[in-house]
Amino acid sequence: MKVSDLLEKVREQKPLVHHITNWVTIYDCANIVKVLGGSPVMAHAPEEVAQMTNIASALVLNIGTLTNDLIEAMKIAALAANKKNIPIVLDVCGAGATKFRDQKILELLEQVKIDIIKGNASEIARVSGLDVSTKGVDSSEVNTDLTLVAKQLAKQKDCIVVITGKIDIIASKDKCFKVKNGNEMMEHVVGTGCMAASVIGTFAAVGDDLAIAACAGLCAYEVAAEQAVNISSGPATFKEKLFDCIFNLKSSDIDASQRIE
Amino acid sequence: MKVSDLLEKVREQKPLVHHITNWVTIYDCANIVKVLGGSPVMAHAPEEVAQMTNIASALVLNIGTLTNDLIEAMKIAALAANKKNIPIVLDVCGAGATKFRDQKILELLEQVKIDIIKGNASEIARVSGLDVSTKGVDSSEVNTDLTLVAKQLAKQKDCIVVITGKIDIIASKDKCFKVKNGNEMMEHVVGTGCMAASVIGTFAAVGDDLAIAACAGLCAYEVAAEQAVNISSGPATFKEKLFDCIFNLKSSDIDASQRIE
Amino acid sequence: MKVSDLLEKVREQKPLVHHITNWVTIYDCANIVKVLGGSPVMAHAPEEVAQMTNIASALVLNIGTLTNDLIEAMKIAALAANKKNIPIVLDVCGAGATKFRDQKILELLEQVKIDIIKGNASEIARVSGLDVSTKGVDSSEVNTDLTLVAKQLAKQKDCIVVITGKIDIIASKDKCFKVKNGNEMMEHVVGTGCMAASVIGTFAAVGDDLAIAACAGLCAYEVAAEQAVNISSGPATFKEKLFDCIFNLKSSDIDASQRIE
Repeated sequence: MKVSDLLEKVREQKPLVHHITNWVTIYDCANIVKVLGGSPVMAHAPEEVAQMTNIASALVLNIGTLTNDLIEAMKIAALAANKKNIPIVLDVCGAGATKFRDQKILELLEQVKIDIIKGNASEIARVSGLDVSTKGVDSSEVNTDLTLVAKQLAKQKDCIVVITGKIDIIASKDKCFKVKNGNEMMEHVVGTGCMAASVIGTFAAVGDDLAIAACAGLCAYEVAAEQAVNISSGPATFKEKLFDCIFNLKSSDIDASQRIE
Repeated sequence: MKVSDLLEKVREQKPLVHHITNWVTIYDCANIVKVLGGSPVMAHAPEEVAQMTNIASALVLNIGTLTNDLIEAMKIAALAANKKNIPIVLDVCGAGATKFRDQKILELLEQVKIDIIKGNASEIARVSGLDVSTKGVDSSEVNTDLTLVAKQLAKQKDCIVVITGKIDIIASKDKCFKVKNGNEMMEHVVGTGCMAASVIGTFAAVGDDLAIAACAGLCAYEVAAEQAVNISSGPATFKEKLFDCIFNLKSSDIDASQRIE
Repeated sequence: MKVSDLLEKVREQKPLVHHITNWVTIYDCANIVKVLGGSPVMAHAPEEVAQMTNIASALVLNIGTLTNDLIEAMKIAALAANKKNIPIVLDVCGAGATKFRDQKILELLEQVKIDIIKGNASEIARVSGLDVSTKGVDSSEVNTDLTLVAKQLAKQKDCIVVITGKIDIIASKDKCFKVKNGNEMMEHVVGTGCMAASVIGTFAAVGDDLAIAACAGLCAYEVAAEQAVNISSGPATFKEKLFDCIFNLKSSDIDASQRIE
């Protein structure tokens, strides 16, 4: 897989990535798209989300601070994305923490076609029907074969499933990749998970194969994170350097460091 | 008071701290809990706030960008917290700036049990009934004995009252502490007050004595701030270093620097 | 034009600048006002916006993540600002991206008196009636004489029109300035445009001549940006250093570097 080629495509095409996301990490989600070379837009008024999605190349949905109104706006935007045939990433942030989240995820998965479901271990386990709970939005331990969970959910929903963690798992109905460039510091910063979904959406906007796009996006993101952690004194300098490293990321850096299986 | 012991408890127990807060500093509030070692969650849909509070160890409410809907969600969450007997911190952000804020604070204080009321000098003076106004969300000068104000309000509401400033005042109905580790740079960054409430909530989540927890939290936060200001060139580098310094804060640093009376 | 004199007035008077803005860059908008020496407040509940505007010295409106409710709050606040005769800056963020935005901008311009309309090239072209579309919130190329567009719109609406870009254009009905201190790095960070509106609002709060205030604000902001870019390794360190440089900005720095025509 040539990860760096897809990054170059992002930089050339500057895809517009429409987000309906949470109020906590909304800035970081926008900014990660920007430093990758894309163009982020965040809009959630039901009156305009379809039109905004219509000029976009990907749609990223994140239920971190969901409300009924926001979910309705997501559905409108998602239907427009389906019609236009652009990829939708759904970050199932906090799945398993409350019944409300679980219900709304179910509604989204039933009423629109989601192309990529992304979450941490306990969130994806929950979406796949296992009886696990999530401690707020941080992953709980899941004693099960995550690769199997991802593959089964991918098959069941006919979509890509991404489980992020120290090792990311990216499964489609017929293939499965692992990205092993993650590092522990990413867990100590709020928003690295949400940004991962935005990165995936940005790469999906320019890639034909969504599993490869998700994989490439995560790999580029995490290679930059490895660079950033080496020049950081803690989580906040790490986060700042992460943006800089993504902006300055060279194809040769990725080629030399990517660990994809 | 052994401040560092409580910080170690936060790091060991990783308490889930549920926030219903403002849209300005929501990220920073989450991130400060994270770098302390806790697990933040921000959720405000009325359908899920009770359940989210039920899995949390503390609830932090901040009215910085309040609306009627948000206040109603706060009440639901607060009743759940009262029932579960976990501490609630209320940041009375902007008290005295508008009648709407004053009314909503009154409603919250009447309808639910708030364990810790936190604000700057003019906000707390206003909540205690004095005829002062707040210039937006920044403190106005208050020509009164703040310690007395805090003590009286604590007695009246049977709760802990925290007035943040260069010297923080923490009063319960029968004791009063002062934390003298504050520094001026904190006034030049948006969000240091909001983050203080999140820090207090995180410590309250693991402490038995809420006055001591509030005091210890502020002390740890401000010792880290003193370290950060020494390696900063202005308010933005200060804020970044503050997160790093909290993450790296050693018990011995706190023990050597804490100035509590 | 003595830009540094107006910066000193901001630092002395510490004007309260009320914002009703978007959820993406709301923190940065507040923080830029703070590091300039002003006092930001963000409040959008319809019940309190008039009273909050009444204690403020300027009102900044930004439609980046507009909803019908938010626009109604903006109208209430704007009428209060008009009555009190304090300046209103409207950032027409995303004009041309959707019909909803265009309609709401039209409503605002018809129902209240906006003192300063601010946008990027394609946004302002759209507001002036040209048939251009905006790619989300990033500027599209506009093949027209921007200075003429700004002047005509200023005359038509009897207000100041600001087009931000590498060269900023500030037009009133009878004069026109250009600020040439912009640099390319500003385009690589989400929020530099929104912050520009907050800077303009802060300077407008203390200046008598709004065109000069807008011009001076942008010049101070961009001189600090030039300093910041020289000590940065990418967009994120740039943004952080920008806040520090504004906080530390000296009159002599501005006097030596300002490029206004």
